[in-house]
Amino acid sequence: MNKEKDSLGKIIPNLFNYKEEINLESGKKIKSFEMIYETYGQLNDSKSNAILICHALSGSHHSAGYYDGDSKPGWWNGLIGPSKAIDTNKYFVVSPNNLGGCHGSTGPSSVNPETGKIYGPDFPVLTVEDWVNTQALLADHLGIDIWHAVIGGSLGGMQALQWSISYPDRIMKSCVIAAASKLSAQNIAFNEVARQAITTDPDFHGGNYLSSNSSPKSGLRLARMVGHITYLSDESMKEKFGRDLKEEKLGFGFGADFQVESYLRHQGDSFSGSFDANTYLLMTKILDYFDPASKNNGDLVKTLGPIKANTLIISFTTDWRFSSARSEELVNGFIGAGKRVNYLNIESKLGHDSFLFPEKRYVEAINSFLNSK
Amino acid sequence: MNKEKDSLGKIIPNLFNYKEEINLESGKKIKSFEMIYETYGQLNDSKSNAILICHALSGSHHSAGYYDGDSKPGWWNGLIGPSKAIDTNKYFVVSPNNLGGCHGSTGPSSVNPETGKIYGPDFPVLTVEDWVNTQALLADHLGIDIWHAVIGGSLGGMQALQWSISYPDRIMKSCVIAAASKLSAQNIAFNEVARQAITTDPDFHGGNYLSSNSSPKSGLRLARMVGHITYLSDESMKEKFGRDLKEEKLGFGFGADFQVESYLRHQGDSFSGSFDANTYLLMTKILDYFDPASKNNGDLVKTLGPIKANTLIISFTTDWRFSSARSEELVNGFIGAGKRVNYLNIESKLGHDSFLFPEKRYVEAINSFLNSK
Repeated sequence: MNKEKDSLGKIIPNLFNYKEEINLESGKKIKSFEMIYETYGQLNDSKSNAILICHALSGSHHSAGYYDGDSKPGWWNGLIGPSKAIDTNKYFVVSPNNLGGCHGSTGPSSVNPETGKIYGPDFPVLTVEDWVNTQALLADHLGIDIWHAVIGGSLGGMQALQWSISYPDRIMKSCVIAAASKLSAQNIAFNEVARQAITTDPDFHGGNYLSSNSSPKSGLRLARMVGHITYLSDESMKEKFGRDLKEEKLGFGFGADFQVESYLRHQGDSFSGSFDANTYLLMTKILDYFDPASKNNGDLVKTLGPIKANTLIISFTTDWRFSSARSEELVNGFIGAGKRVNYLNIESKLGHDSFLFPEKRYVEAINSFLNSK
Repeated sequence: MNKEKDSLGKIIPNLFNYKEEINLESGKKIKSFEMIYETYGQLNDSKSNAILICHALSGSHHSAGYYDGDSKPGWWNGLIGPSKAIDTNKYFVVSPNNLGGCHGSTGPSSVNPETGKIYGPDFPVLTVEDWVNTQALLADHLGIDIWHAVIGGSLGGMQALQWSISYPDRIMKSCVIAAASKLSAQNIAFNEVARQAITTDPDFHGGNYLSSNSSPKSGLRLARMVGHITYLSDESMKEKFGRDLKEEKLGFGFGADFQVESYLRHQGDSFSGSFDANTYLLMTKILDYFDPASKNNGDLVKTLGPIKANTLIISFTTDWRFSSARSEELVNGFIGAGKRVNYLNIESKLGHDSFLFPEKRYVEAINSFLNSK
């Protein structure tokens, strides 16, 4: 019996079925939606120990524990569980798959109840605010008036930030990890390459690939390859692969000569076989659009004004996707607005992906932040 | 009359036709080759004032001056010309298009004289050493025994370095700009994404697109887009585009919302209409393979041992493709080998592309290096 595997008990996703119309930031509406989510730990009687986990671009509701027969756990299993950073002995953890996702929540690959056809490219472009609003509906459904904390890394950190802005009375603590208050031109540029790779794949069919019985795998594979480079640091790639060759000698052809080439191809292959291309497009647009200060003419200090939550901001030294400098901009905004903020820049070699791994100082920081009065 | 336009006189490329077989580093042979080149300035009687310009990935022999009717000059016109960094009043500048290129030298889009068919994917994979060897044949042809200097940026800088290693008695000065002694895993990873974009384009036809009357434009476009991001700095993109929108409002669709998206699309479109995909593949492999120290079990100091040239190494503060740290590695190798080396890290916002622009300190450094005794 594998103690680690059983520590969270049997993991069974739940489905939240919301049957009323919701308004989106774009001005469009969705008639109804389903949101798949997992929970770990027990909600206490006062319903005051709930923590919301917000996933990033390619994440899902399965953030911790093992499904029956699976050898790989949820994507944040290193941080969520009994006696871990997010301690399920103390907290009730709620982990949804966001609207627009492809892991069970309503998204581009779902059937549009209004037309009886797959949404495909007609699924509306969402925003982080839309996500936070639908997560609030899930909280209502679960009877959670106030989150003890909302936590996320990367795009997940943006949701944690948006929660504290949109619902200041429903969140005690916000943990914004490896994120930024908005994307830079370079961030947008990388997302645009990913989108162009997908939309110019002849198998994309204008987004109607499912009804055409095809899949823009080549494009999605390239999108993931380029994304993956930005998740790793130059240093971690050097340590992991250096210039190590696959074979003993250079091939003098266009096969993969270096280990890093095969690794990237493998990453691209495996991702493109399991992720929905329209969801990928959507997620990158949600990233690009995130810029809460744009509603106050770019005034971040004013934007953070309503916040009541105590906020922990964490960055990683080798993260070049959302560098420490980007977190510091955010910290300066909090300071300017006179808000409670804690900031930690963690020494790590793993680049942006650092937020996924339970480095000691990182674990302790989250743990003590969540437990602090 | 435009004085600047006429300062180099009428620019007419020359063709060097080499009719003997050459051996390549891969072990393959080429029966004969043509190399197109331009020259600016006058070769002196002692033939001691010749400077070789080595181009980078997408460069060509047209590095300075204006063709009849053209509004855009050669790619390094800011640095080459009368009284410029590389002063054509003093020096005889030789600027070839490398073997494997697509601007007039023998390359993948040329006809293989042995088969009468277009080389396409059968064009052999070359190395920087092969380039330097064929440039040496051009020097022989021009009666130039010793270059006053060999100069290049990026992949061009690698050629300048290789020249000083391969032909220590034929080069007085070497100027290695925005380069490195070998690519990092991250550098290779970006190249691999570019190659995968091209080779997985259905119009690539295994490299035989010309004989199939097609062109993998989509793939080449993506390759250029991702490459282009690595040429610019985060800072220069921020200054150039920030998060400026194309229209007044977000589109909530998958069109280009931000200026940077249209810019990248435009760069990709224009490049993919004029460059050969097989040449692009070849150039990226030549970059990946460059690692002169690999012939001495990674011992850079030993590798630099034969060098007699005085060397100037230049890097730029915001270059993240070949960062200053990579130039410093090279400088340390020169120091370890007891060689004459000068190093300049130039403050610039323009990232890797900095090497293309005539910033004052950069111009003065090259100028004084070339004129020094």
